[in-house]
Amino acid sequence: MNFLEERIVKDGIVKEGNVLKVDSFLNHQMDIKLLDQMGAEFKRRFGNKPINKILTIEASGIGIACVAAQHFDVPVVFAKKSQSINLDGEMYVAEVESFTHKCINHVIVAKKFLTPEDHVLIIDDFLANGCALQGLIQIVQSAGATVEGIGIAIEKGFQSGGRIIRNLGFQLESLAIVDGMNAETGEIQFRDQSTAGVSGSVEPGEGEICRSSTLD
Amino acid sequence: MNFLEERIVKDGIVKEGNVLKVDSFLNHQMDIKLLDQMGAEFKRRFGNKPINKILTIEASGIGIACVAAQHFDVPVVFAKKSQSINLDGEMYVAEVESFTHKCINHVIVAKKFLTPEDHVLIIDDFLANGCALQGLIQIVQSAGATVEGIGIAIEKGFQSGGRIIRNLGFQLESLAIVDGMNAETGEIQFRDQSTAGVSGSVEPGEGEICRSSTLD
Repeated sequence: MNFLEERIVKDGIVKEGNVLKVDSFLNHQMDIKLLDQMGAEFKRRFGNKPINKILTIEASGIGIACVAAQHFDVPVVFAKKSQSINLDGEMYVAEVESFTHKCINHVIVAKKFLTPEDHVLIIDDFLANGCALQGLIQIVQSAGATVEGIGIAIEKGFQSGGRIIRNLGFQLESLAIVDGMNAETGEIQFRDQSTAGVSGSVEPGEGEICRSSTLD
Repeated sequence: MNFLEERIVKDGIVKEGNVLKVDSFLNHQMDIKLLDQMGAEFKRRFGNKPINKILTIEASGIGIACVAAQHFDVPVVFAKKSQSINLDGEMYVAEVESFTHKCINHVIVAKKFLTPEDHVLIIDDFLANGCALQGLIQIVQSAGATVEGIGIAIEKGFQSGGRIIRNLGFQLESLAIVDGMNAETGEIQFRDQSTAGVSGSVEPGEGEICRSSTLD
């Protein structure tokens, strides 16, 4: 187990319905030393890429992104989330429809902060169905910028987001991939990332959990 | 002028209606080196206090708080904002009524992350009427914890939040206090913080811009 997996085992709480609570160290209370270790690990995994900007999404991605940015010596841009948005010409807006949550969310970034010269590392705390992440990728591409990689703290490997993103050819690095949880025993099963070929293929019909389109 | 005032003059944009846009370096795109300088300055100003936790509020306070936390070597807790909330016993909830924006917001922190043993530094990016800040103070006090100080990046000195908080006896340190702006010329007038006695007194009737109460 790596440092993050160890911490999840120590302080994460498994709840009914495949819920993993990590709010004591990652997304409500934040252990800044752990965030710094994560930043160093992202730097190790993406250090060969010409990254000049980190993009994340409010709220819980911001802390991880800001501490990681110190390892890359680049600025952070955080996307805003909104259920309703007054469109104006100065924003990239991705409309993200969640079939799971039965709602539409907007992911918003001011145009002036993403340009074709940008080489972007996307960072977020959680990846499950990947709706928010698909919105972020869409916005980077709308700007003509390059997604150099995607760094995630915890991926729910039993949901389809990670597979879809990897199948699209992106370098997606999740520091911990949870393949299963047992709310009764509290047991958490992590994917062994030391071996190659972890991506698998998307089963027919399984991928369309969310749908996104750029509005601007 | 200090480093933050200089940066505001260089990259801030004054808009009609006393709006100061600092989204290119502080609250949409974030200059991490600037955040680090701010963290060092907060440490200089609050270093003599027994701070063991930093409390901020989503979203734009989180980056500043996380980078500052590295200077204090403490964890960060960020409060969540919500217009509607299902109360349960595990949360501190402050109801903050904004007379200015004519709405009620809830500021929420899980009870387990604030205890009577906590000595808290509150950090946020902006202080104007201080509604959110009053909600944070209220939550710290509900938990029996101690507010050791309040660190703000930019205070709008012509609004009442700062005065009210200082009159209540809190050590409030704003790295830049804007006393006036001119949207036509782009000029920004900063308060000279090198002299003592900057707090002033609240004029009758001027203070009651927002009202807050703890629900739990």
